[in-house]
Amino acid sequence: MDLKLELQKKADLIEDSLEKYLPKENSPQKHIFDAMRYSIFAGGKRLRPILMLAACDFVGGNIDDVLPFACAIEMIHTYSLIHDDLPAMDNDDYRRGKPTNHKVYGEGIAILAGDALLNYAFELMIRAISKNHKNLERKVLAMKEIAEASGIYGMIAGQVVDLLSENKKIDGTKLDFIHNHKTAALIIAPIRAGAILSGASKEELEALTVFAKNIGLGFQIRDDILDIIGDEKKLGKKVGSDTENQKSTYPSVYGLDASKKKVDELFNKSVKAIEHFGSRSEFFIQLSNYLVKREY
Amino acid sequence: MDLKLELQKKADLIEDSLEKYLPKENSPQKHIFDAMRYSIFAGGKRLRPILMLAACDFVGGNIDDVLPFACAIEMIHTYSLIHDDLPAMDNDDYRRGKPTNHKVYGEGIAILAGDALLNYAFELMIRAISKNHKNLERKVLAMKEIAEASGIYGMIAGQVVDLLSENKKIDGTKLDFIHNHKTAALIIAPIRAGAILSGASKEELEALTVFAKNIGLGFQIRDDILDIIGDEKKLGKKVGSDTENQKSTYPSVYGLDASKKKVDELFNKSVKAIEHFGSRSEFFIQLSNYLVKREY
Repeated sequence: MDLKLELQKKADLIEDSLEKYLPKENSPQKHIFDAMRYSIFAGGKRLRPILMLAACDFVGGNIDDVLPFACAIEMIHTYSLIHDDLPAMDNDDYRRGKPTNHKVYGEGIAILAGDALLNYAFELMIRAISKNHKNLERKVLAMKEIAEASGIYGMIAGQVVDLLSENKKIDGTKLDFIHNHKTAALIIAPIRAGAILSGASKEELEALTVFAKNIGLGFQIRDDILDIIGDEKKLGKKVGSDTENQKSTYPSVYGLDASKKKVDELFNKSVKAIEHFGSRSEFFIQLSNYLVKREY
Repeated sequence: MDLKLELQKKADLIEDSLEKYLPKENSPQKHIFDAMRYSIFAGGKRLRPILMLAACDFVGGNIDDVLPFACAIEMIHTYSLIHDDLPAMDNDDYRRGKPTNHKVYGEGIAILAGDALLNYAFELMIRAISKNHKNLERKVLAMKEIAEASGIYGMIAGQVVDLLSENKKIDGTKLDFIHNHKTAALIIAPIRAGAILSGASKEELEALTVFAKNIGLGFQIRDDILDIIGDEKKLGKKVGSDTENQKSTYPSVYGLDASKKKVDELFNKSVKAIEHFGSRSEFFIQLSNYLVKREY
């Protein structure tokens, strides 16, 4: 299996679906459609929806049932970035090499575009559920996974603690809390939701969950490492901003070497969780290896 | 029937349920629980959830099935107020006589508290659905009503066009668009959702929808009128702010007398839509009369 090719195929499918789902017709509120589309099509890697499609493949489900949920999670991820970039939060002017939403549309519209994407993510999932009642209970359960991972016991919990920890030295426990909630929750949810939608067995779901937890945390620690050793051109953003903003990161709390070792350890654990499924786990294992060694 | 007493009874029920649903336990993210609770318990009239309970009564449904959805719509309404009050939007320091969320918690937390309430509203509805599969299809349909009324074809559409119309003269068509989306959508949705959850017949649902559309618009026009002739003490906010902010309102576009006439006309239409249901429509008719003549 060629990982890059498979990633591209899945990303293209997501791209087409997002294009189809996101409105653009002429109407009094067209401006918000434009603002939503601006950030959705600003060059994201589509990692979260790809993970959901891969979980569907792993279990042997139907991609068409999964696509609305996969696009919903990308919308939720994108809304969180728009709000995170606002002056009252991280105050970032650029993301992925492009001006952030509020730099283009102004703060008011950026706040509304974030709200709109979050709300629309739920509209999309609910519409998929109410249009086709097949496997209704699975779909409700998958939506529950996504909703809880995005909320005050998931991503938002991480964002709040992160915001409150600005310019403060924090300990490993608090840092783990931030990483596990702010980032890992939205890595775990698409994998679990994709598996649930596809009718995963208890054993499959449990193995995928362990896999997901490990790559979720590994992905964020790699992010922290890249802010130190990364290449600005490849990353499409400034490096060293965590240090500049006195942000606590894995390397600042545990040191760079320990962080690299931790990422390797998480990678090994992720592989161990699913390797006994044989060829079905090939994509996830290659992806894990790629994510924890990524340079952007 | 004593309207005030009945309103109080319903509001108390909502108050208790909100208290029960909103977390407050000690945890790293407790700060966001506090911020959510601050705005939820800042003295709202609970109009939207009351409307949902009343629709349930009208149809003869089970209040327990409706309560999570009723609280969800109050959370959505409250999130929209928190974001609306932000400096980048209406920049209001006070609401209902109390400092706005960002004045107490800062802008970053206020943005997250709004996001959290929107997300939590969906969590609440989804949990109610997945906990008890009885009438699953009705519940999904009710959640769809609420989601669509809150989104880019509902409330957010109105907010966007409102924001883009600041300091501009707008015509009646655009003003009607803003009022129907920004305000009426979240008046119509609880009535329809409450009716759907309670198993309304097609005839009941249609009659209640006409009723809801008329009081939805009437409620907002009365709001515009109160900004001119209202009593600051009763309102708990400054009057004349629409004029000061050069905001187009029903009176500024159509004149004060025409606005008052319009409200009366909408009231009459709302009554006409449901009066043939006899005593079942008594609460809604009295409420409509109260809303369009309210002084706060």
